Amino acid sequence: MTAGYDTKALLFDVFGTVVDWRSGIIRELGAWGEERGIVAEWDKVADVWRGLYQPAMQRIRSGNRGFVRLDLLHEENLHEVCHQFGLGEPSGADRHRLVTAWHRLDPWPDSVAGLTRLKSKFIIAPCSNGNIALITNMAKRAELPWDVVLGAEVAQAYKPHPQAYLGSADAIDLKPEECMMVAAHQDDLEAAAELGMATAYVLRPNEFGPDVKIQPTRDGAWTQVAGSFVELADQLGC
Amino acid sequence: MTAGYDTKALLFDVFGTVVDWRSGIIRELGAWGEERGIVAEWDKVADVWRGLYQPAMQRIRSGNRGFVRLDLLHEENLHEVCHQFGLGEPSGADRHRLVTAWHRLDPWPDSVAGLTRLKSKFIIAPCSNGNIALITNMAKRAELPWDVVLGAEVAQAYKPHPQAYLGSADAIDLKPEECMMVAAHQDDLEAAAELGMATAYVLRPNEFGPDVKIQPTRDGAWTQVAGSFVELADQLGC
Repeated sequence: MTAGYDTKALLFDVFGTVVDWRSGIIRELGAWGEERGIVAEWDKVADVWRGLYQPAMQRIRSGNRGFVRLDLLHEENLHEVCHQFGLGEPSGADRHRLVTAWHRLDPWPDSVAGLTRLKSKFIIAPCSNGNIALITNMAKRAELPWDVVLGAEVAQAYKPHPQAYLGSADAIDLKPEECMMVAAHQDDLEAAAELGMATAYVLRPNEFGPDVKIQPTRDGAWTQVAGSFVELADQLGC
Repeated sequence: MTAGYDTKALLFDVFGTVVDWRSGIIRELGAWGEERGIVAEWDKVADVWRGLYQPAMQRIRSGNRGFVRLDLLHEENLHEVCHQFGLGEPSGADRHRLVTAWHRLDPWPDSVAGLTRLKSKFIIAPCSNGNIALITNMAKRAELPWDVVLGAEVAQAYKPHPQAYLGSADAIDLKPEECMMVAAHQDDLEAAAELGMATAYVLRPNEFGPDVKIQPTRDGAWTQVAGSFVELADQLGC
């Protein structure tokens, strides 16, 4: 299965792959709204907030804006989504609470058990667009046993820009072919594969909620395909 | 004891404070020498190699050289120390083995137990001059349970340059006064204290071997003084 690769590290996409961002953001928005007496369709607010994520990063990927941390992009996008849904203008402690909702996302049920097994054989590291503080606080709360935090801020580039992957591998002094990118998103895996990384596609059919069907994987495109991190650990002999 | 501070993260010096670099380097050099039939006073070789560390970083701190990783400085200094002791010119796999000896250092006996307790209450992170790969490989081998790897490479500056501390705190989105620097070296603590960090002086009397006596601490200069990480965990209520 892994012929041609000498995998030493597994690099993980985080939002959607390790943690269930949608349920977490709906929960955090809902709790805030209840305290403030604000009623909204929080699932739609969450989806619109997440929807602003790619265009915000695209301005940086394309060179139209210097690198800034994802916390700041989340804050700017919060402003926009609040305006769009008529939620007022959260400021001070409220704004901080909502922006750091992205730090308080729950892992999928298999994430911690799977990562713990995978860590026995490989360096395991997030290769996320999340900033270091976000990923560190998330890991602390969710008990994600990362060996090291990599990704956008370390590489100063947002995935799927090649530098995000190359900078992460380089930080741990590995070649791309010594890394396996693990993600629930095929565009993320495609970008990693083009650079020579092995790939593991992990199915997270509920990432976008009950109404969104995930496109099935293209057979044979990825080094591994697994239904969970525990299944991936089985496949990789951990 | 910690009046005036709101400590959320403990930042650790690594070489000498968390791991016993001297014994480890003597062991690694000796094993290599034995295989190659090279005889030398390996304790002296280790001390000279370590002695070249500060001047090499000083060229970067002073702005006379751009930032490079500690692995590269160790490699350059190895060249010099081998020349000085007539050890030949290790190349290829030998050079890689010796340079990465700094990745294979053992923790002091209390390090893992103490860090594990401290982690229950604080973010624990190396704030080391070691590069990310070095610190990650060391942690993996020694089972050091860091939450996140910080330090020179993240901040692009070598301690005791202020940016090394400020950049590390900023990466986890904390103010200096929310961090406590933990070190066996008073110059490291002095630099952190000047920036507003709390400080913990941990005594490592054997760091430099049996012939070197460590200068005693100045009473009252540090927020905490402890004989081990376990004692520090007691003091901090972990």
